[in-house]
Amino acid sequence: MRNIKFTVRYDGTDFKGWQTQPGYRTVQETLETVVQSVIGQKVFCNASGRTDAGVHAIGQVVNFYCDTKLEPHTLLKACNSRLPEDVSVSESSEAEQGFCANKSAVRKMYRYVFHDGPARDPIQRKYAWRSKWRLDEHAMAEAAKALLGRHDFHSFETEWPNRLSSIRTILDLKVFRQGELVQMEIEADGFLYNMVRSIAGTLLDIGRGYWPIEKMKHILEAEDRTRAGMTAPPEGLFLVRVSYE
Amino acid sequence: MRNIKFTVRYDGTDFKGWQTQPGYRTVQETLETVVQSVIGQKVFCNASGRTDAGVHAIGQVVNFYCDTKLEPHTLLKACNSRLPEDVSVSESSEAEQGFCANKSAVRKMYRYVFHDGPARDPIQRKYAWRSKWRLDEHAMAEAAKALLGRHDFHSFETEWPNRLSSIRTILDLKVFRQGELVQMEIEADGFLYNMVRSIAGTLLDIGRGYWPIEKMKHILEAEDRTRAGMTAPPEGLFLVRVSYE
Repeated sequence: MRNIKFTVRYDGTDFKGWQTQPGYRTVQETLETVVQSVIGQKVFCNASGRTDAGVHAIGQVVNFYCDTKLEPHTLLKACNSRLPEDVSVSESSEAEQGFCANKSAVRKMYRYVFHDGPARDPIQRKYAWRSKWRLDEHAMAEAAKALLGRHDFHSFETEWPNRLSSIRTILDLKVFRQGELVQMEIEADGFLYNMVRSIAGTLLDIGRGYWPIEKMKHILEAEDRTRAGMTAPPEGLFLVRVSYE
Repeated sequence: MRNIKFTVRYDGTDFKGWQTQPGYRTVQETLETVVQSVIGQKVFCNASGRTDAGVHAIGQVVNFYCDTKLEPHTLLKACNSRLPEDVSVSESSEAEQGFCANKSAVRKMYRYVFHDGPARDPIQRKYAWRSKWRLDEHAMAEAAKALLGRHDFHSFETEWPNRLSSIRTILDLKVFRQGELVQMEIEADGFLYNMVRSIAGTLLDIGRGYWPIEKMKHILEAEDRTRAGMTAPPEGLFLVRVSYE
């Protein structure tokens, strides 16, 4: 069996997330159905991680085993011509037998986008979280520094205990403005459930001046989810990149 | 009667353009219906120009006469709370009696967005024109220089004769890349029908290497629409800004 690796993009708006759920439109089922129609064989698409309903992906990585004789690039073209307009395959290659999109991942990068213009932006409405308050991106960037490095991120984790450990290492965390959009880019060796969205919700409260910059450090040290901000909504979240050894 | 000036944004995807047409959903009718419901009086919304079906606006300017006692900012908030999610009012002020969003305009700026990544981008599918070919943005920028200044743009005009003159002055024209998006920003003292989209279609043919850079100058000098490239599709076009004295 060959092990095929795909990089996949999707607009999460009209999907009930990555993972197949009976009765709902999901990215996994959409992709598996198309791959099967191309190669004439049932496949299981294994993703780097499950994205929630409404979350977008620019660089989701997926692998699946199959017997096809098609070259990876031919497979990509055939799939793209059959996939609906809100999903596409941007890269295709043959991976080593042991490669697992989930377990082999060593780093992931997410982007979270806030919009704080004077009024709703119709163009960004599905791709950014609308803030009624003007955000101070410098305060947000300064507060974010407290999260860099290896910490217990229990304060930014929903539905604990769901892992053996909530210790992760944030390798990079930037906050910057582009016009009316404030973007957060965060890269880590792994993420807890809702970690990016609860960090985004906390940064919003600092950016709008409700909390001081130092609050971030106190929330992190508290190891208590109730101390952090809200879980930011899915439309502002993008899975940008997954890195492997 | 007070003369109210609005700056309006819209996602053109689900509109049959700006101008009211019986049986179709248009921005003009949507906005007039909401303003009327807020102030209890029929109004006529006069735009800087009609955008075609599918074209987006970040800074469309509109004026209308009415008797309301509401302050402009209160009117903006009331309209935004009633407008559908694909339209919003970003600025509101009281203009002089003689101000006309169309006739008082001295400059307009449009953006046209091309996408030339390795595969379809689901996130950009409604906001950029997908090019199957990789584009050379430097060749496009160089070719665009031939259009700067005062010229007869008859080669970039659909349905001529529709104006007394097809002489216009392009004040600024930039082409640059941002990742997989190539953007053209064009500012002029006025635009002919489909002028931005036929310039975009011509630039695509130069960017993909089908035509040499010098071709742009020859097309301009020919004053013949059949010599230029295709009219680029509406989804890549944004009305960005309208300037007044």
